[in-house]
Amino acid sequence: MGNILSFSCDYLEGAHPKILEKLVETNMLQTVGYGLDEYSASAKEKIRKACDAPEADIYFLIGGTQTNATMIDCMLRPYEGVLSAVTGHISVHEAGAIEFGGHKVLTLNHINGKISPYDIENYMKAYMADQNKEHMVMPGMVYLSQPTEYGTLYTLKELEDISSICKRYKLQLYVDGARLAYALGAKDNDVTLKDLARLCDVFYIGGTKCGALFGEAVVIPKHGYLPHIFTMIKQHGALLAKGRITGLQFDVLFTDDLYTKIGKEAVDYANLIREALYNKGYEFAFHTPTNQIFIKLTDKQISQFLDNVNFGFWEGLEDGRKIMRIATSFATTKENVDKLIKLL
Amino acid sequence: MGNILSFSCDYLEGAHPKILEKLVETNMLQTVGYGLDEYSASAKEKIRKACDAPEADIYFLIGGTQTNATMIDCMLRPYEGVLSAVTGHISVHEAGAIEFGGHKVLTLNHINGKISPYDIENYMKAYMADQNKEHMVMPGMVYLSQPTEYGTLYTLKELEDISSICKRYKLQLYVDGARLAYALGAKDNDVTLKDLARLCDVFYIGGTKCGALFGEAVVIPKHGYLPHIFTMIKQHGALLAKGRITGLQFDVLFTDDLYTKIGKEAVDYANLIREALYNKGYEFAFHTPTNQIFIKLTDKQISQFLDNVNFGFWEGLEDGRKIMRIATSFATTKENVDKLIKLL
Amino acid sequence: MGNILSFSCDYLEGAHPKILEKLVETNMLQTVGYGLDEYSASAKEKIRKACDAPEADIYFLIGGTQTNATMIDCMLRPYEGVLSAVTGHISVHEAGAIEFGGHKVLTLNHINGKISPYDIENYMKAYMADQNKEHMVMPGMVYLSQPTEYGTLYTLKELEDISSICKRYKLQLYVDGARLAYALGAKDNDVTLKDLARLCDVFYIGGTKCGALFGEAVVIPKHGYLPHIFTMIKQHGALLAKGRITGLQFDVLFTDDLYTKIGKEAVDYANLIREALYNKGYEFAFHTPTNQIFIKLTDKQISQFLDNVNFGFWEGLEDGRKIMRIATSFATTKENVDKLIKLL
Amino acid sequence: MGNILSFSCDYLEGAHPKILEKLVETNMLQTVGYGLDEYSASAKEKIRKACDAPEADIYFLIGGTQTNATMIDCMLRPYEGVLSAVTGHISVHEAGAIEFGGHKVLTLNHINGKISPYDIENYMKAYMADQNKEHMVMPGMVYLSQPTEYGTLYTLKELEDISSICKRYKLQLYVDGARLAYALGAKDNDVTLKDLARLCDVFYIGGTKCGALFGEAVVIPKHGYLPHIFTMIKQHGALLAKGRITGLQFDVLFTDDLYTKIGKEAVDYANLIREALYNKGYEFAFHTPTNQIFIKLTDKQISQFLDNVNFGFWEGLEDGRKIMRIATSFATTKENVDKLIKLL
Repeated sequence: MGNILSFSCDYLEGAHPKILEKLVETNMLQTVGYGLDEYSASAKEKIRKACDAPEADIYFLIGGTQTNATMIDCMLRPYEGVLSAVTGHISVHEAGAIEFGGHKVLTLNHINGKISPYDIENYMKAYMADQNKEHMVMPGMVYLSQPTEYGTLYTLKELEDISSICKRYKLQLYVDGARLAYALGAKDNDVTLKDLARLCDVFYIGGTKCGALFGEAVVIPKHGYLPHIFTMIKQHGALLAKGRITGLQFDVLFTDDLYTKIGKEAVDYANLIREALYNKGYEFAFHTPTNQIFIKLTDKQISQFLDNVNFGFWEGLEDGRKIMRIATSFATTKENVDKLIKLL
Repeated sequence: MGNILSFSCDYLEGAHPKILEKLVETNMLQTVGYGLDEYSASAKEKIRKACDAPEADIYFLIGGTQTNATMIDCMLRPYEGVLSAVTGHISVHEAGAIEFGGHKVLTLNHINGKISPYDIENYMKAYMADQNKEHMVMPGMVYLSQPTEYGTLYTLKELEDISSICKRYKLQLYVDGARLAYALGAKDNDVTLKDLARLCDVFYIGGTKCGALFGEAVVIPKHGYLPHIFTMIKQHGALLAKGRITGLQFDVLFTDDLYTKIGKEAVDYANLIREALYNKGYEFAFHTPTNQIFIKLTDKQISQFLDNVNFGFWEGLEDGRKIMRIATSFATTKENVDKLIKLL
Repeated sequence: MGNILSFSCDYLEGAHPKILEKLVETNMLQTVGYGLDEYSASAKEKIRKACDAPEADIYFLIGGTQTNATMIDCMLRPYEGVLSAVTGHISVHEAGAIEFGGHKVLTLNHINGKISPYDIENYMKAYMADQNKEHMVMPGMVYLSQPTEYGTLYTLKELEDISSICKRYKLQLYVDGARLAYALGAKDNDVTLKDLARLCDVFYIGGTKCGALFGEAVVIPKHGYLPHIFTMIKQHGALLAKGRITGLQFDVLFTDDLYTKIGKEAVDYANLIREALYNKGYEFAFHTPTNQIFIKLTDKQISQFLDNVNFGFWEGLEDGRKIMRIATSFATTKENVDKLIKLL
Repeated sequence: MGNILSFSCDYLEGAHPKILEKLVETNMLQTVGYGLDEYSASAKEKIRKACDAPEADIYFLIGGTQTNATMIDCMLRPYEGVLSAVTGHISVHEAGAIEFGGHKVLTLNHINGKISPYDIENYMKAYMADQNKEHMVMPGMVYLSQPTEYGTLYTLKELEDISSICKRYKLQLYVDGARLAYALGAKDNDVTLKDLARLCDVFYIGGTKCGALFGEAVVIPKHGYLPHIFTMIKQHGALLAKGRITGLQFDVLFTDDLYTKIGKEAVDYANLIREALYNKGYEFAFHTPTNQIFIKLTDKQISQFLDNVNFGFWEGLEDGRKIMRIATSFATTKENVDKLIKLL
């Protein structure tokens, strides 16, 4: 708060103003609880249309870690584990939530946050050939995030390859879309909601980091794919009593394609910043086409910014420099982007 | 929605208007995430004062089942279980969330939702004397709710007796305050927040059912009592990214004692309804001094109400009648209470 | 040890001499591990024949609690719980092993350790009718023990009724046969191994308490019913490296019907003791047709026995007397039975 | 079985003849169950002496995976994970038993199965410095095996360095001694049982692979270090009813230092084989000083051996060759070693 501008992450503000308007407008109406209300129903119907998945089961959960832990536990049998990039959110930053549910995260190498179809296939070949495989955790699904934790994107070709390998090895495919709006809004992105619904067994459309107060919309394209999921959500403490609060947020986000618009605007702002950084000679840690930018700064450079703007710390480098994250969001304004560019 | 009035539960509407005002007012301000913001800090300070617990650790979680599962898992060692009324929320209506965390719910008889100090003591005496006790789950804590799931209240004397037995047998004491406002606002209640902070190891102040969109405030009177609880909350999927949204709701609820006022008003309305029911000869299932009323109705009576007002189904009786619940809440208005009374 | 005779339980000695002979005889032969050896194969084939279940999958685990915890975890989905008598071993004396695996034990009343078909049906009716059932643990199976923890037996009619209710409500049926030899060897017993294989989804034939050093044989009549069970057994720490040690014990027990003979002899001895107790006017706590006898003794009576013979303490009575257990086993001799009868 | 000699692993035979003698000799004596008998007491006392740990708590469990899963679950709090070599048994070959207990295995690089003190320190430095560390699994202990899964040994200096780093970072140290006899019996080994008792918080002395039918002896040098461990063992299904069967096996193994003698003899035989392999020009995959030898063979070489002797498959190499394991054990004879050497 105060006068220092922050670009450190994409959950610094509340919600898109239209969401608050809707909350205020509907506040004193009475509805049943637990997501069985008409706002949730309307939001689900809009998401089904956007995904071209008329049969899809849709549930609204509250946060990303909770959604990953609950859905992975619903999808796996006890003897199965989940394949993930070693940098995947479930592998590093969920405090062991997947293991709390009894499942092992089986890690694969990453390239800027992405796993390659080739690595999945090699893992499965080695597993299938292993004489001790019955003493090992059986891979039951692949977890990936779009965009990844590094702000990178899978292409449609890559996702189709991964999906095809998954089918061949009877692995389920799950996509974590915590920042999905910023993938959908990226210039070169060629993966649509319809593609995700066609290729994934389960995926979620992130609200928390894309303009909602909180909330993630789980999409299960095939109706009845996860039996008794309502009870599993309750068991995981992920069932909101006033379920309509999440429902109406997604109803707003999926009205007039607001969700993609939010993503596009944030990525456009990120591109302006990216261009300015490039022109002024800043060094990028790796290329990203979404709302997150990663640059290498010296401590001196970082301290010069500190009076005016906050970036997010990402990781230290061996040469003493640091990778810092600049993130735009649904709340970023042209005015603040201009301010930042002047400070560069 | 529509024209039918509902008194079926206390989470039918959104939030107290002051909460929405605050949400709107602060929406575009930037704060850090995960509850480390200034709104959360302010709310915690107000709760500490209200509880006369200046050292208390306070955390904001999202819903009741989640809070119970997380805190019970934090409080117990793996070989311990939790003593609860057989009617306790954790025993019946949390879809096995406690067992998902690896702990057994050890049940005690209830009298209208309450457990007696005597029954706890007897359980512990039998356990201590059992030659096989090392083959059994060791009771590690007592769970009770104030008000109970049946809308009844523990007296201060009862809570002090339970606390004293807990100390004698090294049992931790945990109070589920999902509807605590309606206890604090009840006429004959003599248990204050300060008493709870003095007698409990951990308790929570319910927001969801007491005027917030969602949110429960966990109070741990003794600082440092539960080490690494932040990581445990994250592991349970109970950490909100935009933590300030919960923080500022409790900041509003604990400004000018709004929390107790909400409770008092709802109980006052419940008392008006209670009086009318009594005068018209309705039969109560049991006496409750809070916002919930339980009456016995025939199917015919129920169907007569259905066009105009909804009650909550509680349980069937052997004589064919049903126990129905009438609940008031932060959102109940004098106008609707009058309407209901006319319909009785 | 020493000169005091013990009848306190049925696991006081080592193993049936024929088992030790076989152990000694085969000791230095080399076999593969993990139960894939020829002794295990032979034992499985004999059990399949005894059960008239030619397709049955059979696994050898080590102890009762382990077997129950592993199999129940294999049989249930995470949202399901297991129905059991409140006195069931899994409910009381397994230190929360079922809950450690994430499942709730849903308790039913008992009559001398047995559950009635009627109570299962009533539980299911109430569950199906409950408007909140999706917030509750879904019953997924019935657990019962034959003989029960109280030494009593289900009749074939009772088991068939239970099985039929299970089918109607899609409950799996699991029978804990820790002391199964003593059921098979009881005079009035009309439930055979073939009946168990016909009526149960899974059951186990107890070795530990029926003449083996350790070991329980899990029978899954329908081949492939529990996929990847080998990996689940490993995950539960229940896979013996030198699996043949269990295999050959069961191979001996199922050669020339030794298993039933062991049971019959022990029950015959128990019947001699029972008759003597009856004749001398001792009061039985309840009637049992198997190897366990429960009588009511005063402290004075107990202390008179203490110099010569040990009984097992079962539970205290309100009148100050104690229920004591007298158990015979594979190792009981006529000589010792006569000694005991003289002491009565 | 049959005429083919097997050197594929160290659990192909039953038990050391002295163990069987003792089993036969004591078979019909009566003792109490669950490890409270006099054989277990005697074995514990002998182990305490061998470890120079007069206060040590000692428990006998059944197998390695079970022991690791149970003890790690006893040692860690729910928010903690266990550091292990990526090749550690708990990381690869326990079917997710550690995760089943809710804990994450945090992997470190290995050099021939060993972790370096330097890597532990670097992991901890990075963890302590990580701004997101409260969102991550906290390392609570180090797991290592002596000998490692690759048959290599830690030196005393290495173990002391690791212990010292553990103390500095408040990590517990746990050593898996599944094959400990073959470390104690190795020529260049300088780590004694007393060193392990001095440096570890918990370790276990393996029986299954070192001459017992089954059984692992857990040593907790500091009395009372793990409260209620008996109940935890029961909860994990790891408590043997006839506990004396494990107790007396360790009583035999720790009489006249049989345990180390078994190890020494097997390593001496391995050294003869090693020398022969070296002289005939076989290529070793890596150097091992214990009972396991790893050599690189072509498929052709392997098939030439197949009619006469079995080796264990370890892993494939990129050049098409395979690493094969040759293991000696308590049961290896001079005669068979000579036969093998002739076949080389």
